[in-house]
Amino acid sequence: MFLAKVIGTVVSTQKNPKFLGMKLLLIQPYITREGELVQSGSSVVAVDSVGAGIGELVMFTQGSSARLTDVTRDSPTDTVIVGIVDTVEIGGKRLAKP
Amino acid sequence: MFLAKVIGTVVSTQKNPKFLGMKLLLIQPYITREGELVQSGSSVVAVDSVGAGIGELVMFTQGSSARLTDVTRDSPTDTVIVGIVDTVEIGGKRLAKP
Amino acid sequence: MFLAKVIGTVVSTQKNPKFLGMKLLLIQPYITREGELVQSGSSVVAVDSVGAGIGELVMFTQGSSARLTDVTRDSPTDTVIVGIVDTVEIGGKRLAKP
Amino acid sequence: MFLAKVIGTVVSTQKNPKFLGMKLLLIQPYITREGELVQSGSSVVAVDSVGAGIGELVMFTQGSSARLTDVTRDSPTDTVIVGIVDTVEIGGKRLAKP
Amino acid sequence: MFLAKVIGTVVSTQKNPKFLGMKLLLIQPYITREGELVQSGSSVVAVDSVGAGIGELVMFTQGSSARLTDVTRDSPTDTVIVGIVDTVEIGGKRLAKP
Repeated sequence: MFLAKVIGTVVSTQKNPKFLGMKLLLIQPYITREGELVQSGSSVVAVDSVGAGIGELVMFTQGSSARLTDVTRDSPTDTVIVGIVDTVEIGGKRLAKP
Repeated sequence: MFLAKVIGTVVSTQKNPKFLGMKLLLIQPYITREGELVQSGSSVVAVDSVGAGIGELVMFTQGSSARLTDVTRDSPTDTVIVGIVDTVEIGGKRLAKP
Repeated sequence: MFLAKVIGTVVSTQKNPKFLGMKLLLIQPYITREGELVQSGSSVVAVDSVGAGIGELVMFTQGSSARLTDVTRDSPTDTVIVGIVDTVEIGGKRLAKP
Repeated sequence: MFLAKVIGTVVSTQKNPKFLGMKLLLIQPYITREGELVQSGSSVVAVDSVGAGIGELVMFTQGSSARLTDVTRDSPTDTVIVGIVDTVEIGGKRLAKP
Repeated sequence: MFLAKVIGTVVSTQKNPKFLGMKLLLIQPYITREGELVQSGSSVVAVDSVGAGIGELVMFTQGSSARLTDVTRDSPTDTVIVGIVDTVEIGGKRLAKP
């Protein structure tokens, strides 16, 4: 899984029927560098399975495992938010959230 | 899933029989950077499962999940368009489509 | 799927028995940039499932979907050529093949 | 699999129920370059399945195979630590651990 | 699949029980550039399924297909060596092995 910040929303009307009712969020991956969370890599469209909101730090799962939530089961989903992150700690120090 | 713009078409006559009747589109991934949609990464050949057309902003799925549409089921497909994107919104601002 | 040009052959005698009789081709991925096909990324070893030959432009599938051809079924294959490309068209213009 | 060093911990309360009781670790991938282990690539959130601790050199598995441990089975996990590394040896020389 | 050279060994005692008896090798991917094999990308830990030795040029499979050998079946493996490469030929010229 990777860490990411929820930065926006995506709306699609003409879509695969399995996506009906799913919340599509735009997320920006974050990595840690020298004890800080810094953004890295491309923004991704993820299905929310945990009630995540804009601005929250989350962790997301990719690939076939993204279908292993009740929300995404059997759907053509390759990215799903699986947790809202409370804390990331390195060397006993709690990292500031972006 | 990632965002992409449909930029072209691909025609293949000598192909795996499971691809018969599938529409193959060339898509260019887009990411968001500083509140704008900018192209990023390599062009990809995707199967269309939602009636997407040239110039449209879409979202696409990769990997085994790309086989989870009625169009692509059991075919050797690793990339499928699963939605036509109406809006991408960041911080209450609707992003201009590329 | 990605576009690629078949650039060579790979021979392996001591290999997984499932690869017996498979044709292993070396392919170079191509992407489109400013309306032209340009090479990009790393050369890959792909199983041929469509009778592709040296110099041809093909499209290939990766991941678990690469096992969904009659040639590669149940084999430890992660890359397979699934079509010989006749034309790639962007904006009504047919791209020159590399 | 890739090599990585365990550098931190991730805590998430609001998460997919399948993650209950799992230990989430932040790991930094390492590669070998000129006979030394050097860090490379993005930090990843991994589920621990072998009792790994902070500072240890481990190897981790990604993708659908990450669900093939007793800890992660049927969960939406795409990254799992599968071993604590004792030694990495190149050319008869044991590499210093980071 | 990608080409790689076997450059080292990895030993892990505390590991997933499915890895018991598996030979873990460190491999360095190689690609072709201007008719030569040059190293590229990150070193990877791969399970050997074909009796590969240090210094040999091999091809390896990633993802779920890495579990499709007798050695790796049902194990949390995402990378396996599936063949020892005899020759790589481009344009009728046999490439020198690294």
